[in-house]
Amino acid sequence: MAKKFVYFFGDGKAEGNAGMKNFLGGKGANLAEMTNLGIPVPPGFTISTEVCDLYYKNKNKYPAGLEEEVASHLQKLETLMGKKLGDPVDPLLVSVRSGAAISMPGMMDTVLNLGLNEKAVNGLIKKTGNERFAWDAYRRFIQMYGDVVMGVPHEEYEEILHKMRKLKKVQNDIDLRPADLQEVVKKFKALYKNHTKQDFPENPKTQLWGAINAVFGSWNNSRAIKYRQINDIKGLLGTAVNVQCMVFGNFGEDSGTGVCFTRDPSTGQNLFYGEYLINAQGEDVVAGIRTPQHISKLKNKNPAIYNQLLQFRSNLEKHYKDMQDMEFTVQQGILYLLQTRTGKRTGPAAINIAVDMVKEKLITEEEAVMRVSPEQLDQLLHPMIDPKAKKVLKALAKGLNASPGAASGQIVFDAAEAEKWAKEGKKILLVRRETSPDDIGGMHVSQGILTSTGGMTSHAAVVARGMGTPCVAGCKEMVISGNTATILGKKYKQGSWLTIDGSTGEVFDGEVSLILPKISGNFKTFLSWTDKIRHSAERKGISGKGFGVRTNADLPGDAKTARDFGAEGIGLCRTEHMFFDKEKLDIFQEMIVAEDVDTRKKVLKKLGVLQKKDFKGIFKAMNGLPVTIRLLDPPLHEFVPKTKQDIQRLSEKTGVSVKKLVTKTESLHELNPMLGHRGCRLGITYPEIYDMQVDAIMNAACEAAKEGVKVHPEIMIPLVGTQNELSILRKNAEAVIKTVFEKKKMTVDYKIGTMIEIPRAALVADKIAEVADFFSFGTNDLTQMTFGYSRDDAGVFLPDYLEKNVLEKDPFQVLDQEGVGQMVEFGVSRGRSTKPNLKTGICGEHGGEPSSVEFCYNVGLNYVSCSPYRVPIARLAGAQAIIRARKKK
Amino acid sequence: MAKKFVYFFGDGKAEGNAGMKNFLGGKGANLAEMTNLGIPVPPGFTISTEVCDLYYKNKNKYPAGLEEEVASHLQKLETLMGKKLGDPVDPLLVSVRSGAAISMPGMMDTVLNLGLNEKAVNGLIKKTGNERFAWDAYRRFIQMYGDVVMGVPHEEYEEILHKMRKLKKVQNDIDLRPADLQEVVKKFKALYKNHTKQDFPENPKTQLWGAINAVFGSWNNSRAIKYRQINDIKGLLGTAVNVQCMVFGNFGEDSGTGVCFTRDPSTGQNLFYGEYLINAQGEDVVAGIRTPQHISKLKNKNPAIYNQLLQFRSNLEKHYKDMQDMEFTVQQGILYLLQTRTGKRTGPAAINIAVDMVKEKLITEEEAVMRVSPEQLDQLLHPMIDPKAKKVLKALAKGLNASPGAASGQIVFDAAEAEKWAKEGKKILLVRRETSPDDIGGMHVSQGILTSTGGMTSHAAVVARGMGTPCVAGCKEMVISGNTATILGKKYKQGSWLTIDGSTGEVFDGEVSLILPKISGNFKTFLSWTDKIRHSAERKGISGKGFGVRTNADLPGDAKTARDFGAEGIGLCRTEHMFFDKEKLDIFQEMIVAEDVDTRKKVLKKLGVLQKKDFKGIFKAMNGLPVTIRLLDPPLHEFVPKTKQDIQRLSEKTGVSVKKLVTKTESLHELNPMLGHRGCRLGITYPEIYDMQVDAIMNAACEAAKEGVKVHPEIMIPLVGTQNELSILRKNAEAVIKTVFEKKKMTVDYKIGTMIEIPRAALVADKIAEVADFFSFGTNDLTQMTFGYSRDDAGVFLPDYLEKNVLEKDPFQVLDQEGVGQMVEFGVSRGRSTKPNLKTGICGEHGGEPSSVEFCYNVGLNYVSCSPYRVPIARLAGAQAIIRARKKK
Repeated sequence: MAKKFVYFFGDGKAEGNAGMKNFLGGKGANLAEMTNLGIPVPPGFTISTEVCDLYYKNKNKYPAGLEEEVASHLQKLETLMGKKLGDPVDPLLVSVRSGAAISMPGMMDTVLNLGLNEKAVNGLIKKTGNERFAWDAYRRFIQMYGDVVMGVPHEEYEEILHKMRKLKKVQNDIDLRPADLQEVVKKFKALYKNHTKQDFPENPKTQLWGAINAVFGSWNNSRAIKYRQINDIKGLLGTAVNVQCMVFGNFGEDSGTGVCFTRDPSTGQNLFYGEYLINAQGEDVVAGIRTPQHISKLKNKNPAIYNQLLQFRSNLEKHYKDMQDMEFTVQQGILYLLQTRTGKRTGPAAINIAVDMVKEKLITEEEAVMRVSPEQLDQLLHPMIDPKAKKVLKALAKGLNASPGAASGQIVFDAAEAEKWAKEGKKILLVRRETSPDDIGGMHVSQGILTSTGGMTSHAAVVARGMGTPCVAGCKEMVISGNTATILGKKYKQGSWLTIDGSTGEVFDGEVSLILPKISGNFKTFLSWTDKIRHSAERKGISGKGFGVRTNADLPGDAKTARDFGAEGIGLCRTEHMFFDKEKLDIFQEMIVAEDVDTRKKVLKKLGVLQKKDFKGIFKAMNGLPVTIRLLDPPLHEFVPKTKQDIQRLSEKTGVSVKKLVTKTESLHELNPMLGHRGCRLGITYPEIYDMQVDAIMNAACEAAKEGVKVHPEIMIPLVGTQNELSILRKNAEAVIKTVFEKKKMTVDYKIGTMIEIPRAALVADKIAEVADFFSFGTNDLTQMTFGYSRDDAGVFLPDYLEKNVLEKDPFQVLDQEGVGQMVEFGVSRGRSTKPNLKTGICGEHGGEPSSVEFCYNVGLNYVSCSPYRVPIARLAGAQAIIRARKKK
Repeated sequence: MAKKFVYFFGDGKAEGNAGMKNFLGGKGANLAEMTNLGIPVPPGFTISTEVCDLYYKNKNKYPAGLEEEVASHLQKLETLMGKKLGDPVDPLLVSVRSGAAISMPGMMDTVLNLGLNEKAVNGLIKKTGNERFAWDAYRRFIQMYGDVVMGVPHEEYEEILHKMRKLKKVQNDIDLRPADLQEVVKKFKALYKNHTKQDFPENPKTQLWGAINAVFGSWNNSRAIKYRQINDIKGLLGTAVNVQCMVFGNFGEDSGTGVCFTRDPSTGQNLFYGEYLINAQGEDVVAGIRTPQHISKLKNKNPAIYNQLLQFRSNLEKHYKDMQDMEFTVQQGILYLLQTRTGKRTGPAAINIAVDMVKEKLITEEEAVMRVSPEQLDQLLHPMIDPKAKKVLKALAKGLNASPGAASGQIVFDAAEAEKWAKEGKKILLVRRETSPDDIGGMHVSQGILTSTGGMTSHAAVVARGMGTPCVAGCKEMVISGNTATILGKKYKQGSWLTIDGSTGEVFDGEVSLILPKISGNFKTFLSWTDKIRHSAERKGISGKGFGVRTNADLPGDAKTARDFGAEGIGLCRTEHMFFDKEKLDIFQEMIVAEDVDTRKKVLKKLGVLQKKDFKGIFKAMNGLPVTIRLLDPPLHEFVPKTKQDIQRLSEKTGVSVKKLVTKTESLHELNPMLGHRGCRLGITYPEIYDMQVDAIMNAACEAAKEGVKVHPEIMIPLVGTQNELSILRKNAEAVIKTVFEKKKMTVDYKIGTMIEIPRAALVADKIAEVADFFSFGTNDLTQMTFGYSRDDAGVFLPDYLEKNVLEKDPFQVLDQEGVGQMVEFGVSRGRSTKPNLKTGICGEHGGEPSSVEFCYNVGLNYVSCSPYRVPIARLAGAQAIIRARKKK
């Protein structure tokens, strides 16, 4: 039997249904479904997406039999309607629209009013008795067909209309008379001929196939390709083509058109929401010439239609169990639904709708969890521009949405200056070409960061995301010169107010009112469901349940914030971040330049007292939860003074000569510090540093425990590449711990584990696991070394690589499952071949990126860890990963 | 049945044999073997190495039954000899010696003359009638026993002897009279008691067990452990203990002792070679007090003994089929063999013996190939100090043997100065604290390099090895200050002559005569056998035979040298090395600072002409052999001028302002250049550079082919980490090649492949293989990234890592099979899962390191590639790998 390519819908029954989206496209499947539901839908037929696929596979040729199948379905449509395409007495008009399985609004082509020609337009006049309407329909058809099918420039049509309006001295097209429109049609046809070197087709079949070709052709126009790329839409067969009887909302005051949502798409409130226009076609709404009315007004204007809509609203939502976005047209008092689809919504709306629908018993909690995307959740987690304020704002410029959230502040161009202003209590926005490690202090006190160069992985972007500070990076329209930023000609001096939206990349003039995130109400309920799912997850091959979410937090304050956001422990506490504090940095520098081990130990003792205080604060904030503390990781030269004054100061403090200090700091210089003397390599050469840190951690743990805090310290040794490194350092640590326990006359539970961040560590994970209580995958460094990319330098070629599609995604943002992912898999499987229940987690930046979280779950990790503001996203992404995995089983 | 631990030998038959080395140690197994061969060996018994193993495993306790077994064997020995240990009438004296399966000369302990006590010494006097001999034997026993078993300081014994000689006004111990020696014995015993707080043991059984304990204990003394570490001796059970009747060479003029070799161990000549001393014990030879006689003198002195020795020489060599090192003692006219073992020999001797023995049909070619170690071969491949000269030389100082070969030259402290002197035709030796990339020019013109700091992987060491230039690195005794080097107080100014031996690390005063390597005669024959084996090697799963050896050569001259050394192609031609030539560097810099693509292309054209010339030269030198050419690899900043003058000069040349040039060069700076914008990443961002190179390669190939040269160009793209990179660059290259072929109206065969040097590339090798004709493993970078070590920086912690045994070997010298090796395996197996016959090779420095070559063969590579002077070593290592693999089957 020949394959069926065309599916009819009309007269209360359809050959397709909502389950056939992949095959009929979203629009086609829903038109069929609505038809079957008895909802008034103008009849028509859908040519399947498979045809599109075969068309491209077979060098732009249609499969055999398609032409006949279309012809027979057209005949069926003509018979049902009692009209014929191109009929000079009672012509059938159809629309030809695209519709893929996933909505790609505005990306592909549509032709309306198809079937009109010189004879049929007269038939339409006779049949409708509305000469103006008929000529207007005809000129619209010529315009769309020329534009969409033959590439005649849209503006040239508009130019003709514009001239005609001017000539006739009228404001709107609607005021042109039939004769004027007839004249327009003539001119349109001349324009068409001029461009295409052929007459406008009179034969409706020719018109129909022209339109079908155009729709299939539009699947691979550059706009559509780009859209699919950006939105990561893959694996579709192509677009379907929907040929459907036209209905007209512009038949007079008893006609109209509108769009409505079954709930408010911006808040999620369970209110009927939408807009309509009397005597208009859909495109008039889009054109924005006339202002539409709120749907509620229809209640008084036309209660019958309104009630019918309410009924459809209720039926469709119950049927589809999700908020619907419906298009309708009223032609001479008769309501038609032209489309229904899942309505797009804001983050807050998504949460509210999902939670409400569970309460209404429409969907289950699991279904609700799948209804909100991690990206939508992200909208709720950063200060954002008050939606009320945003309505009237216009962006000055747009950069990269480097770190989400909005921020307003007085602009400052220098990090030191920023720190000064912040001390004076000013809200400031740090504006720089690009930031460097020297700017850390200034970045820390800023509300937000705005740079003119640099990409998504620039220093500013990476640090800002880590800090949870909003950042717009690479805003090319901004030129910085001295203490002035010029944005599109307008100058902003130091102290001027600007606002940035790091979620969109927009930059606004002045101070704008912001609203702050809070986890309460429906949001809280929603997240509690994600937790329920995560905590119940069975893990194949591992004893115990659950997939945890921890946080990367270095200071007690961050730990508290993260816990409020639902963190179930600390997955990474970077001890070196504690040293950036002035007092500690001074001591740390003293330690580095110490000329012998004894001096070093003496200085370290001072440092230990201060570190202990920090650790105790963190244990308290995380009472009852595990805290993974990483011992010193960066190379020492990151801490030494760089300026003459700072060296002078250090010399005075330590009594070591400036000359010696300069020699010392120079000797620490490395050609490739990323691959240098850091992490456990420091721990091996300077055991006294790690000893001090372990001593501080365990003293803090014991003291906190004595005060009633439940402590679960996990000591993590970074940059391990061989079993020997870890076994030596483990022994050292255990010796220190033993001494602490003896002194304190008590013990606490603890673990000693390692980062897996060196490729070799993943390869020999079976050996390393012999001496490790846990693994934490440091996917930042693992990505750097597996790819051989320095994150600090890759900015030079990575943008080019993404542009040229050498890489699909920035591997520092989205875990490279194909390559780096294998390393993680090795680490887990080999580690567990030695210790079947080895606890494994991730603490790279990927731990808060949804697709990476899913990978981590699937590969068998026990938890992910991410920055505090990403914790709710990881909670959701984790739950969704579990649900998807269950479905696949 | 209880396990047998003790093996008897004597009276013409033995319980052991030469095949039991692992169990009886080399000495014990050979004593047994000789006994069975009817060679006169003093009888005795061997306690097996397994006892040593059990002793350590069981906390220094012997296995049950050992004591009884030793006792019964002792009794058997006493019965055979008709003497008894400690007998006051006719005492049996025995030696107790160590002997592991692999010889560890001088590392473990020996006790001689055991069995003497106050009574037995009198028995000995009576029996021998030689009072002096008996007292001397007794004092020797007390001295050795005290030293070896109880740790009484050797010097204190010597001090007593010294005082006695002084007192008696004699020069030598031999001149002391029996009474003096009796006095010495008394004092020795007092010394013993003073140190050990106990009397010297009178009971011979106590003595015996004391000595056995000491020998087993010496297996794990720090000296022995270190020796095994250095010589990479692993997997032994322990040492055996040989208890053997004493024979004495110091019984008078009819007695003597000697060591002889069945062939000359320094040249390999088939001449009886050795030395003997009349009336002496073995230790007297070692002590060097008397000068031994050449063995040939014995012919006249004692023809009977000499002829007997000649007979044993012939029998033993025929039996063992290898050159033997024999120890003998003549006691009162009777010859005893105390030991035979495979004789150590120099590299040239090893070759000559192996080849001669094949000619003599003693061994097969395969056996001959296994008889020469790659290290021995290395001795033949570098200029070396004339062995005649070396005999009288004494080293001034010793550094690290960083790059083999000897070199004499006038010392110069500055690279630029070195270039100047070299132009004047002087032979120079570059002396620096450490070298840097700026010194490349000076290094290139130097005979050798000597540095005072830096290790085996320092810049000087790595570059020198690459260049094949002798280098002694890290010579700590040398202090450089301005233009003077001070070595142990002696000052050497610029222009002074020094000589270095990079094979040993020694530094000599003045100019020393050197001899140069040549492959001819036996050496050539020997290497031809290795080739036969390599060419015949069947490769499982790959069609075709053979395991190739190629070379890394960048210039026609190097290619010629390598071919003379037997290279079968070029595995790595680094195109960028061509740019270090002044003329090309100028143009290259011009290209880098070009402000637009057109200027860049114009400059590249000039460069292309020059590169083509080099490539043509290489194709000619390699006529008929494959030549793998790697496209530009290092980051551009390696080529930009660094000094003010150079920037000024470039500015004048290009017309680009100094300011712009400074900005440009600064913008090229990278934090981690190793992981930066280099290799194929440059090829993607600046396609015109690779296009120029491919154009030059293929034009050169076509032109050479027209001149009758057989060309096999293989274009290699470096630093690939994703399939996309290679497929894009392959397409670009193919387009250029097509154009060249069209222009030249001809084609030549070519291949396009890639380096596997990024960990990710190894992981996705199956995908990369889809677009690659070959893989070449760049194990230098692969090691850097798999370990996360920068070779430039690792010098800070690697020595510490090796010292503390965190790493067994420097992974930049010996391929880390456990970690990096997995990456190579992935690359091969995954690559071949896509293309079963994918050609694979290695071009990292490991390609010339024997254990790494063996790994490469076993993992399935088609060839290794190494620096020209390592080619013969790789040829041998490859053949040996094949033989070993066949044996394992």
